[in-house]
Amino acid sequence: MNINKNIIIRLSKYKNSLKKLKTFGFKKVFSDNIADSIGVTPSQVRKDFSVFGIPGNKKGGYTVDELIEELNKILGKNEINKIIVVGAGNLGTALIKYEIFRKEGIKIVAGFDIDPDRIDENSPIPIFHINKLSDFIKSNDIHIGIITVPENAAQSVFDIMITSGIKGVLNFSPFLLKSSEEVVINNIYLQTELESLIYYVNALKRN
Amino acid sequence: MNINKNIIIRLSKYKNSLKKLKTFGFKKVFSDNIADSIGVTPSQVRKDFSVFGIPGNKKGGYTVDELIEELNKILGKNEINKIIVVGAGNLGTALIKYEIFRKEGIKIVAGFDIDPDRIDENSPIPIFHINKLSDFIKSNDIHIGIITVPENAAQSVFDIMITSGIKGVLNFSPFLLKSSEEVVINNIYLQTELESLIYYVNALKRN
Repeated sequence: MNINKNIIIRLSKYKNSLKKLKTFGFKKVFSDNIADSIGVTPSQVRKDFSVFGIPGNKKGGYTVDELIEELNKILGKNEINKIIVVGAGNLGTALIKYEIFRKEGIKIVAGFDIDPDRIDENSPIPIFHINKLSDFIKSNDIHIGIITVPENAAQSVFDIMITSGIKGVLNFSPFLLKSSEEVVINNIYLQTELESLIYYVNALKRN
Repeated sequence: MNINKNIIIRLSKYKNSLKKLKTFGFKKVFSDNIADSIGVTPSQVRKDFSVFGIPGNKKGGYTVDELIEELNKILGKNEINKIIVVGAGNLGTALIKYEIFRKEGIKIVAGFDIDPDRIDENSPIPIFHINKLSDFIKSNDIHIGIITVPENAAQSVFDIMITSGIKGVLNFSPFLLKSSEEVVINNIYLQTELESLIYYVNALKRN
C-alpha cells in the first residue's frame, strides 16, 4: 500500500484532536466533529478512515477510545517511539525538552553534539559526544533521529545515522536531505516557512 | 494573481541555494544547477521563473547576483523582515536566537511571555510581558509573528496579534489556526511530523 504523506499527517491530527475531545468528556464522535476540529470535510475523514479499514459508522458515530486505539495502531505509536536529537544547540535543546513530545509518548532518549560544553551524560536526557552516536543507535535499536546541526555538518551526521540503523529523519538543517526507499526524511525549513509568510504578507498589503 | 504556497516555498529554496552557489564562486547558473540543488526538475525551475516573469535564458544561464536580487524582490525580503516571537519558552527562545534567521536578514526584534522569570527588557532581543504585545506591534509596525505558546493560550494570543496588525503567523502551538483573506498562517506541527515519520519507519520495517 503506497500511502501519501498527507493522509498520515491527517491521521495524526485526527488522533490528537480525539485526545482533546476525550478530555472534554466526549465518549462518541461523528466524522463532522473530527472534520471541524482539524479543518477538513467530513467526507475526507470518512475516506481516510476507509483507506485503513476503519469501519464507517455515520449514524452511531465512533467510540472515541476505540478510534484513538485504532489510529495509534495504524500510526505505529505502540511499537516505536525512541528518538534521538543530533545537535544540542538552542533548537536541539528545545526539542529535547519539548513538553508536547513527552505528553504524547514520544520519547527523546538522548542528544548528541560535538561541543564539549554541551555534553552532559548525567542529565535526565543525556547529551553525548557525537563520537558515541553510532554505538548508541545500534545498541539501543533507535530508528528515528532529529537533525539540528549546522548545514555544513548535516551530511556527515546523516551518513553516520543511516549506516547505524536510522530509518527516519526529521531534518531542521537547511541542507537538502533526500528520502530513499530505505530512509524517510521530513525536512522542516524554518527560514523558508518565514520567507513564504513574508511574501504573502506583502501580497496582502498590496491588495 | 493567485499564487500557490508551494511555488513560494520553492522560490525561497532557489534563492537560498543560489546564495550557497555564490559562496562557491558561481557567477552564472543554469536551471539544471538550481534544480539539482533543491531536488526538482529543470523544467519546474523554468516554469516557476516564468510565472513571475523572470526571463528564461537556457543557453547563457542566469547571472547569480541578478537572480538573487530578483527573487528577493519577489519574496518581498527587501520590504519587511521584522518579526516577533510570542512565547519565550525553550522553543521560542531557540527561534529568537536562531542563527540562520539572523544570517538571512530576518530580524526577530522582540519576544513576549506571560512568565515574569522570562522577561528581560534589556537583552539584545528584549523579552517583554505579554501585556505590551499589542502596543509593540502597533508602534513598531510589525506584520509577522511566531507563536510558540502552549495550546490553551494560542487563540487569545492570536486574537491580540491580529487585532493589533499582524498579517502573517508561523504557528508552532498544536492549536489549529486558520488562514483567512486577511491573515496568512503557516502551521508547523512538530508532533505530527514525528508521528508521520514513526508511521513510515514502521512501514519500512514491515517490508
